[in-house]
Amino acid sequence: MYRGESFFPPVRTLLGPGPSDVAPRTLEALARPTVGHLDPSFTALMEQIKILLRETFKTSNNLTFPVSGPGSAGMETCFVNLVEPDDEVLVCINGVFGKRMLENVERCRGIAHVLETPWGQAIDPQQVQEMLKKYPKTKIVAFVQAETSTGVLSQAKDITQVAHQAGALVIVDAVTSLGGVELLVDEWGLDAVYSGTQKCLSCIPGLSPVTFASSAVQKIKKRKSKVQSWFFDLNLVMDYWEKSDQGSRSYHHTAPVNSLYALHESLLILKEEGLENSWQRHRQNHLLLKTGLEKLGIEFLVAAQSRLPQLNSIMIPQNVDDAQFRQELLTKFNIEIGGGLGALAKKIWRVGLMGHASNEKNVTYLLHAMQSLLSCR
Amino acid sequence: MYRGESFFPPVRTLLGPGPSDVAPRTLEALARPTVGHLDPSFTALMEQIKILLRETFKTSNNLTFPVSGPGSAGMETCFVNLVEPDDEVLVCINGVFGKRMLENVERCRGIAHVLETPWGQAIDPQQVQEMLKKYPKTKIVAFVQAETSTGVLSQAKDITQVAHQAGALVIVDAVTSLGGVELLVDEWGLDAVYSGTQKCLSCIPGLSPVTFASSAVQKIKKRKSKVQSWFFDLNLVMDYWEKSDQGSRSYHHTAPVNSLYALHESLLILKEEGLENSWQRHRQNHLLLKTGLEKLGIEFLVAAQSRLPQLNSIMIPQNVDDAQFRQELLTKFNIEIGGGLGALAKKIWRVGLMGHASNEKNVTYLLHAMQSLLSCR
Repeated sequence: MYRGESFFPPVRTLLGPGPSDVAPRTLEALARPTVGHLDPSFTALMEQIKILLRETFKTSNNLTFPVSGPGSAGMETCFVNLVEPDDEVLVCINGVFGKRMLENVERCRGIAHVLETPWGQAIDPQQVQEMLKKYPKTKIVAFVQAETSTGVLSQAKDITQVAHQAGALVIVDAVTSLGGVELLVDEWGLDAVYSGTQKCLSCIPGLSPVTFASSAVQKIKKRKSKVQSWFFDLNLVMDYWEKSDQGSRSYHHTAPVNSLYALHESLLILKEEGLENSWQRHRQNHLLLKTGLEKLGIEFLVAAQSRLPQLNSIMIPQNVDDAQFRQELLTKFNIEIGGGLGALAKKIWRVGLMGHASNEKNVTYLLHAMQSLLSCR
Repeated sequence: MYRGESFFPPVRTLLGPGPSDVAPRTLEALARPTVGHLDPSFTALMEQIKILLRETFKTSNNLTFPVSGPGSAGMETCFVNLVEPDDEVLVCINGVFGKRMLENVERCRGIAHVLETPWGQAIDPQQVQEMLKKYPKTKIVAFVQAETSTGVLSQAKDITQVAHQAGALVIVDAVTSLGGVELLVDEWGLDAVYSGTQKCLSCIPGLSPVTFASSAVQKIKKRKSKVQSWFFDLNLVMDYWEKSDQGSRSYHHTAPVNSLYALHESLLILKEEGLENSWQRHRQNHLLLKTGLEKLGIEFLVAAQSRLPQLNSIMIPQNVDDAQFRQELLTKFNIEIGGGLGALAKKIWRVGLMGHASNEKNVTYLLHAMQSLLSCR
C-alpha cells in the first residue's frame, strides 16, 4: 500500500537530451500564485510572452505562441493544421524525430514521400531537390533542424530554399535548436516551426512554442476540411491567443498558467543574455567538452560540420557497459546523460549542454566524472 | 517595445469556474528541481501518482494516469482512441462541454446522435434510453457529469446503467466533478473518464487525469484503424505510463515533470483530508453560500437537486451590469468569479467553490464583497 509522502527529487545535473537544468529564477516564477486564464494581468503576460517568443524565433509572425503541451503537441499542431488528406508531403528522416513526422503525416491521411538519410548525417538539400523533382505535387517539406536522437544539425536555410523553389512550404522541428544555435525564421523564410521549452530555453517541460508565417496561415485558412483535432485546431486556439483586446478573447482551454509564468521568465533570462551570446556560449562549451573528450579518447558520432553544440553524440568506448556507466554517473555524481535510441542504442551517449546547463562548471564536472569512472575500470 | 520585467501576479481569490486557488504546498512542490523524465526517482513518482489517482477516481483500473495537457486534451484522448470512423455515438448536450464532445465525435468521423437538454437542466436517463432504442447501433454514450458552463450535475450512475443495458460504453466528462462530488468509477461501471487538475484537485492547470476500464481498453485494442492522433494514441502513451519496470519503459514524449510534482502533492493533500470528507466540505460551503445569497435575494439557475456544490450558477440581479460588477470584484476585492457562456452570457455568474478554495473564509468574503457592491448601487 502506498502511504503517501511529499516528493523531494534528487538534485541532478541534467546533461541528457532534455529536460535541461531549469534556472532557479524560472522555478521561482513557476511557483507564484495562480491567477485565472482570463485575468487582465495574465492576458497582458500572454502578450509579453508572444513578443519574447518572436524575438527568440527571429520573426515578426503574428501567430507565435506556446502550445499547451510538450514538443510532440507542437509537432501535431503543425501537421494537423497544415496537412490535409491527400496532400503530398516530403518527409526527411535522419533520426527518431523525422520518423515521428512521418507518423503525423500518415495519421493526417497525407501522402508521404520519404527521404531517408543515415542516422548521424545531415539532410542533403540537393537530395531534397531531387525528390521534389520526382514528386512535383509536393506541398510541404518536413524536416528536423536539430535531431535530438543523433546530435545532427541540418541546414534549415538551404533546405527551405529548395522547398520554396519547388513551391512547397516547410515544417521545421526546432525543438532542440531554439536558443542553442542560429535559427532565423523570417530571414530563412520558414513557414511553420515548433519547439520545446525543456531544451535550450531551460524552462520546465510541457510547452511547445510555435510560429507560423502568413504562407502557412493562408494554407490553413484555405482548408477544405476541418482540422481533425479540436484541441490543436489553430482556428480555435487563435481566438484565445491572438486577440489582444481582453474583452474579445474567447475561451478555448484553460491555459497552463504557472508554466507560462516560467516560460516568460526563461525567455527574459535569454533576452538579458542576448540570443546571439547564447548561441556563442553553447558553441564555446561544446568546444570545451570536445577538448576534454579527446583527452579521454572518446570520439563523436557526427562529422564536425554537422555537430550540434547542445547535443553531443559520442561513441561509447569499447568494453564499457552503457547502462552500468550511466547508472554510476547518476548515483555517484548525480549527472544524467542520455543513451542512444534505435540502432544507436548501446552505441552512443548523448550529452546535452543546453540552456542554463551549458556552462564550464558542468562540462568540467562531467569530464571529471567520466574520467573517474573510466579509469577505475 | 517590450523591455521585459519579471512577472509578479496579483494575489487573487479564485472563485470562478477554474482554475481554483492552488494550495501553497502544491506550489512549493511544483518549484522543486527538475529531474529527467526517465530518472528512477521520477518513474517511482509516476507509480505513486497512478495509485493516488486510482484512489481519487475510486477505481482499480490499471490504465489511470494524467494526460500531459489540460482537460480538453484528456477529452480528445478519450474520443480519438475510442471512436472509430462510422462508430455511432450518442452525445448528450446540456452545455458548452457537451457541445465540445460533439465536435470531437465529428472530427473522429464518428456518426453523432444528439440528445439536447436545455442548459441548466440535468440529462434525463430516460431520454437517453429512448434515444438508444431509436439508435440501437450506438456504441458509445458521451455525457458531462458536472457541466462547468451551467453548474448542473447529471446522474452518471443512471445514465451509465441505461447505456450498458443497450450495449454501449460511456465516456464521462468529470473535469469539474473529480474531488468535489461523488464519482465512483468502478461501482458505477464508467468505461472512460477524463478530468482536469485545476478544479477540485486545486492543482495548477495543464494536466488531465484519465481512467479507462478494461471494456474501453478492449475496444481500443480491437480498432481497425490507427488512432488519428500520434500524441494522444494510448497504445504509445501506455508504453511510457504503464510499464512499472523502469528498464522497459519507453520514451513517448517528455513528461511535464514539475507539473507532476504538483499533482502528486495535490493528490496527497486530498488523501490526507479524505475523499468523502472533501465531498462533504464542498457541500457544506455550497450551503453556506446559498444561505448568504438568499439574504441578498440572489437566485440559482439550477434546480436544487441538480446543483453542483463546487460550481454555483446564480442569476445576475436586475439592473446590475455584469462586466462592471465582476471588474469591481476583481479590482476592489481581488476576487474572480466567472460570467455566463453562450445564451447564458450576461444572465448568470458562475461561482466556483473548488478544492482548496472551498472554505468558509472565501464564502464569507465573497458574500461581503457582493453585498458591498450591490448596496452601493
